[in-house]
Amino acid sequence: MAHDERGVTPQREDFSAWYNELVFKAELVDRGPVRGTMVIRPYGYRMWELLQADMDRRIKETGHVNAYFPLLIPESYLQREAEHIEGFAPELAVVTHAGGKELEEPLVVRPTSETVVGEMMAKWISSHRDLPMLLNQWANVVRWEMRPRMFLRTTEFLWQEGHTAHADEADAMRETLLALGLYAQVARDVAAMPAVAGEKTPSERFAGAARTYTVECMMRDGKALQAGTSHFMGTNFARAFDIQYAAESGGQQLCHTTSWGMSARMIGGVIMTHGDDKGLVLPPLLAPYQVVIVPIGRGEQADQVLPPARELAGRLVQAGIRTHVDDRPQLSPGFKFNHWEMRGVPIRLELGPRDLAAGTALMATRLGGRKTPVSLDSAPARLNFELTAFQDLLLRRATEFRDQRTLTVDTWEQFASAVATGWASAFHCGEPACEDDIKAATSATPRCIPDDGEPEEGTCVRCGRPSAYGKRLIFGRSY
Amino acid sequence: MAHDERGVTPQREDFSAWYNELVFKAELVDRGPVRGTMVIRPYGYRMWELLQADMDRRIKETGHVNAYFPLLIPESYLQREAEHIEGFAPELAVVTHAGGKELEEPLVVRPTSETVVGEMMAKWISSHRDLPMLLNQWANVVRWEMRPRMFLRTTEFLWQEGHTAHADEADAMRETLLALGLYAQVARDVAAMPAVAGEKTPSERFAGAARTYTVECMMRDGKALQAGTSHFMGTNFARAFDIQYAAESGGQQLCHTTSWGMSARMIGGVIMTHGDDKGLVLPPLLAPYQVVIVPIGRGEQADQVLPPARELAGRLVQAGIRTHVDDRPQLSPGFKFNHWEMRGVPIRLELGPRDLAAGTALMATRLGGRKTPVSLDSAPARLNFELTAFQDLLLRRATEFRDQRTLTVDTWEQFASAVATGWASAFHCGEPACEDDIKAATSATPRCIPDDGEPEEGTCVRCGRPSAYGKRLIFGRSY
Repeated sequence: MAHDERGVTPQREDFSAWYNELVFKAELVDRGPVRGTMVIRPYGYRMWELLQADMDRRIKETGHVNAYFPLLIPESYLQREAEHIEGFAPELAVVTHAGGKELEEPLVVRPTSETVVGEMMAKWISSHRDLPMLLNQWANVVRWEMRPRMFLRTTEFLWQEGHTAHADEADAMRETLLALGLYAQVARDVAAMPAVAGEKTPSERFAGAARTYTVECMMRDGKALQAGTSHFMGTNFARAFDIQYAAESGGQQLCHTTSWGMSARMIGGVIMTHGDDKGLVLPPLLAPYQVVIVPIGRGEQADQVLPPARELAGRLVQAGIRTHVDDRPQLSPGFKFNHWEMRGVPIRLELGPRDLAAGTALMATRLGGRKTPVSLDSAPARLNFELTAFQDLLLRRATEFRDQRTLTVDTWEQFASAVATGWASAFHCGEPACEDDIKAATSATPRCIPDDGEPEEGTCVRCGRPSAYGKRLIFGRSY
Repeated sequence: MAHDERGVTPQREDFSAWYNELVFKAELVDRGPVRGTMVIRPYGYRMWELLQADMDRRIKETGHVNAYFPLLIPESYLQREAEHIEGFAPELAVVTHAGGKELEEPLVVRPTSETVVGEMMAKWISSHRDLPMLLNQWANVVRWEMRPRMFLRTTEFLWQEGHTAHADEADAMRETLLALGLYAQVARDVAAMPAVAGEKTPSERFAGAARTYTVECMMRDGKALQAGTSHFMGTNFARAFDIQYAAESGGQQLCHTTSWGMSARMIGGVIMTHGDDKGLVLPPLLAPYQVVIVPIGRGEQADQVLPPARELAGRLVQAGIRTHVDDRPQLSPGFKFNHWEMRGVPIRLELGPRDLAAGTALMATRLGGRKTPVSLDSAPARLNFELTAFQDLLLRRATEFRDQRTLTVDTWEQFASAVATGWASAFHCGEPACEDDIKAATSATPRCIPDDGEPEEGTCVRCGRPSAYGKRLIFGRSY
């Protein structure tokens, strides 16, 4: 705990060091014993729970039901879809022994569940009446990571994966975009992360997908984080797993399937979207504690202040505000201020004998500025108001930041300069080789063909050939 | 779906066949592709979600916080506690290859997490101020099963595992019993399963525990189901993982730790406690649908009845009742009655044109008896009342059943007869060899030394030596 006071490397000095130090100092995570794994500590896990509860509600409200599929999948399942196994083979963890014996067929620890879900859908779907089948699963998956990074790329991670089957392409495409919209909403309305939603270029597609969509968010170092993806599989998996149905008009038809996932990587996104040199800055909707009350005074003063602090906390909790009283007697108020600033608590209330006498508490928000006295009587309503304002402010700030760092460019020089600090909105010829060339030169890749981009034609910012996709793409370096 | 109409093997004919058929026909589960694994289908998973939500609330209300520890654990971790590895070695699934290479050290897929939690607690705990540390995790675990059975024993299962560290034995014992009490409450108050809580005999302890406690429930075939266990580890794991703290009085001390788990096996318990020859009978608190409305009439009549059925459902949902309207036009009411009886829905409302004209719906409960007209106007209040009564009735019925089948016995003959159909309350000498002997003769084992048993001494029901434990034990065959 004494670590707190040492602070973290400033963002401008080394953004990556800032992040890597902060996730540990804020006690979000710890390193697992196996390379690339992480332990999610209670403070970090609570953020995930809050995100999860919100997403689960939205997933259910849009007609999906949760189910659970097995962790261990026969290796042969993945091989049934050629692109799928090609994409995932290098990342697989393989169980070869179990129950004291060598297994006849090796089992992979699921890297994703399209294959086993496909196998079951083939069993469960027989008629058009069984469609659409709208499933979701909350689960852990394992992908062997060469360059692990807490929350962003870990060998094991927690996520939800939606898997749906539909009678035709149009219905499956509607679903693909519905999930995409859901992710954009969660990012914006819960995580205060403005997202650009759009389609991936063919070279960035999910292994086995016909079309992949993404929501991309800008981090404070100008890089992009893919915050969720939604895949239209066409009939690729239906063919590999024989997912057929008897059509209303008679005859057997292949289903069209989708899958879509959002993971605990979102927590990493929240950290890198809002955090500053003092530590985390949490959107109230994802903050384990939205308000922390720090009693001021020692000894007899503390005895005097603590009961009203607890009474105030009780009233805030009653009003639906996640509130914590930091009553640790051995620590100074200054230590506590730093402690909760590091942990990103949106609002701190200081309550000393003088405040108490005046019937107020002193409010400080995590974004600084002048401390304001708040009437104890009206504190619940006032703090609910302030928390909403704080949530809005974070979104506005992140949106402005992203817009300032997104440049519409038409020359290579402008392009290279834009992606050094943010994103470039530019034309591209659509050739994978040209994408590779851009990546080699700048580390930037096409993040997406934005859904809300204006129809426009031009020439490729790199090679000068005519533009593809009928609009500009967003390019950026990414996590 | 047409399966429904075929029904299941009667319980009296073959209880095991009844169970095995029912879990599939009620669409709770399906077989996973790997031997001993299962897919939890939406209807079964919803039951787990309802149980999980209730338990999670209780776990948090008693001061615990959730965290998440890695799935893959170095094999060497398990070896640090000799009894622990001895107990779990035969059940381990082992990852030997990952990322396209053979691993230097094999990794086990967690069968339980004491070892990795112990390793982290050793890092996180330094002072008495860090204690107690009260953690819980919701996770999947893998134990290779030779005799798999859906929900009861599967190669992978879902559970919560509590892990706590304490300054002294007394505090750790308090925690062990707190968790035990929590399990007994959840079994009784949510699953309507009356539980006998007590300590396991030494031979039935968890691998590495100093004391193991259990809640045991009686199934309708008279066998016992262990519905949750709570372990006092003493300093066994603290010593193996070096979990120490600086005591307030100075000097380093080993922590005392506990662990406790309850799993989706509880769903199997619910099925076998309440189910009958028509299918599941669900306690309302765990029923995905508490009320199903079946519109009666076809063609024009259906058009007339469906809107008021939906309006009624809306009002029931408003009143917090999980309600479903079975509006499938192609199926007869009789088919629907069977369908929902198989799925254990507590209350069915039939709504036909004549009911509608009378301002009522016809109520049938899953336990049968006369159908009763219910006023549409007062339906929400009435159904909330009926659901509470139904929940109570299931608990009362299960308690009576258990009490009738639990016999206090003092002779071997009585004992053998009691455990053939239920439980025996009997004295035992405490010798493991004598336990083995009883098991060989009757398949029965000591389920627990019941917490609420009267202090009493006698002679061992098998060997005639003086009794141990100071009270009678509960014996029974078990799952």
